[in-house]
Amino acid sequence: MRMVDETLFQETAASHPLLQQAARHLVLAGGKRIRPTFLLLSGKIVDPTITGLVPLAGAMELIHIASLVHDDVIDASTTRRGVPTVTALWGNQVSVHAGDYLFARSLMLVAKYNNPRLLMLMAEVSYGMSEGEIQQILSAFDVDQSIKSYLSRIRRKTALLISASCALGAIANQASESMIRTLTRFGHFLGMAFQIRDDILDLTSDETTLGKPVASDLAQGIITLPVIFALQASGGETLRRKILLLQNDEIPVTEVLPLICQPTYLESANQLAEQYILKARREIDRLPASPAADALVELSEFMIARNY
Amino acid sequence: MRMVDETLFQETAASHPLLQQAARHLVLAGGKRIRPTFLLLSGKIVDPTITGLVPLAGAMELIHIASLVHDDVIDASTTRRGVPTVTALWGNQVSVHAGDYLFARSLMLVAKYNNPRLLMLMAEVSYGMSEGEIQQILSAFDVDQSIKSYLSRIRRKTALLISASCALGAIANQASESMIRTLTRFGHFLGMAFQIRDDILDLTSDETTLGKPVASDLAQGIITLPVIFALQASGGETLRRKILLLQNDEIPVTEVLPLICQPTYLESANQLAEQYILKARREIDRLPASPAADALVELSEFMIARNY
Repeated sequence: MRMVDETLFQETAASHPLLQQAARHLVLAGGKRIRPTFLLLSGKIVDPTITGLVPLAGAMELIHIASLVHDDVIDASTTRRGVPTVTALWGNQVSVHAGDYLFARSLMLVAKYNNPRLLMLMAEVSYGMSEGEIQQILSAFDVDQSIKSYLSRIRRKTALLISASCALGAIANQASESMIRTLTRFGHFLGMAFQIRDDILDLTSDETTLGKPVASDLAQGIITLPVIFALQASGGETLRRKILLLQNDEIPVTEVLPLICQPTYLESANQLAEQYILKARREIDRLPASPAADALVELSEFMIARNY
Repeated sequence: MRMVDETLFQETAASHPLLQQAARHLVLAGGKRIRPTFLLLSGKIVDPTITGLVPLAGAMELIHIASLVHDDVIDASTTRRGVPTVTALWGNQVSVHAGDYLFARSLMLVAKYNNPRLLMLMAEVSYGMSEGEIQQILSAFDVDQSIKSYLSRIRRKTALLISASCALGAIANQASESMIRTLTRFGHFLGMAFQIRDDILDLTSDETTLGKPVASDLAQGIITLPVIFALQASGGETLRRKILLLQNDEIPVTEVLPLICQPTYLESANQLAEQYILKARREIDRLPASPAADALVELSEFMIARNY
């Protein structure tokens, strides 16, 4: 992981000092390096030699950071909902091009492997991710969306990149096709569980733990799984009306929250996350036992149990 | 070119109807298909069979459109300077992800060629383009910038993609290394001339011809070649002060324009463009005579003579 961080540092060297400063700020601010970790562990399952995978692992983190930067781009109408740090520091225009820049650096790292399959997968992932993001924007405040459309949205937005990270580690280390498929599915199920848990935490955690206001997703109209469960329940009409009021800025999000944060809705959402975890675990069981496989299991438990 | 347009139409099929509508709007709105044309002609110089190059040509146009969409992303503080169409219709957030989406589709088209060299070049181009864009934002209203920094900025922002389009046509059609280098240089010189002429037209043309307000670049603080010549001339101090007033919104751009639109500054800029054209022409002269080479020369003349 130290080597991954070195890669990230090198890849954010830029011809313009301010661009370099912005890019490095993003890399240093960016969190837990989940995607590189999964990539390296997946590679290790196939072959213990993984130093060759470090640039690829760095590339996955760069894509992730690039997508966070692009998520920070805000509409003039939404500034009142709180301006995220990067955009606050450098503005929308720098954010959009800094994101492009990081994505291009990531692309260059992957291109160096001279393996078209890696690039094809990366292209498909970034294609799916942008579809997921747009789906999310266009379905804002849509109280009629189904669980199915929620799942397809988080699959694109989150699970695709985690799944691809697992697949790429395996592909780059010449795994068998069946092993690549297993790790792809593992990453998919884990990514789904991860996002569902993340969406629950957005509603139930506190500001200090989250590092952002509680229910910031809901405030922006992002309808997540517990919200859908609450909308589909018998008292859904009241919630529906409140979400409309929220959209029109007539009430704060704290007035909507109590209708959603009921044990039954949160528990239903949690159960779905656990089902995905179970499915992810079953994929690992298909693999030969190894310390790397154990680490994947441990890491998934850690990711899902996290309260931050 | 009809086939390129078909490719563009297919590649903007999206799972979400609104995304598809946005993407197709962009493709249909987008202009003269200069990059695909150069790619196909460059390919033709090597080998008359160019139908295989159509997806690659489409990919270059998609990158171009993606970069236009990302250029449209605006800061809250700049909305008063007039909101571009795409962003006006769908907002910053959709623009940033729609741009990412188009770029990813472009990447997928290139990935299908199974040729790592094409992808490496594409990665380098998008990396350079985002650097150029950020350079432009960060140097806004900087009255001390040199001709050298202007040239390095337009090289990245414009010439790189045109140069890469020429190179990619040649590479994909298995040209010799020396022919690839020649076409790369041709595209570079032509792209430089093209952008210089574009920057002159922004100052001298009228709104109807341009399809946007006169001096819209200058209004945003983009310091182009004629402006630098005017700043470096003996009367530069007055201009310097006026640009500062413009930046503080104390005067309109029309009050700055007369200080720049003097025959001597415009002519100096034009001369530099012509030098680049001459260099581009010399590169073509290195190639064996062919109708495709003639077409490249004609097309470059047309591009530079254009008044729109």
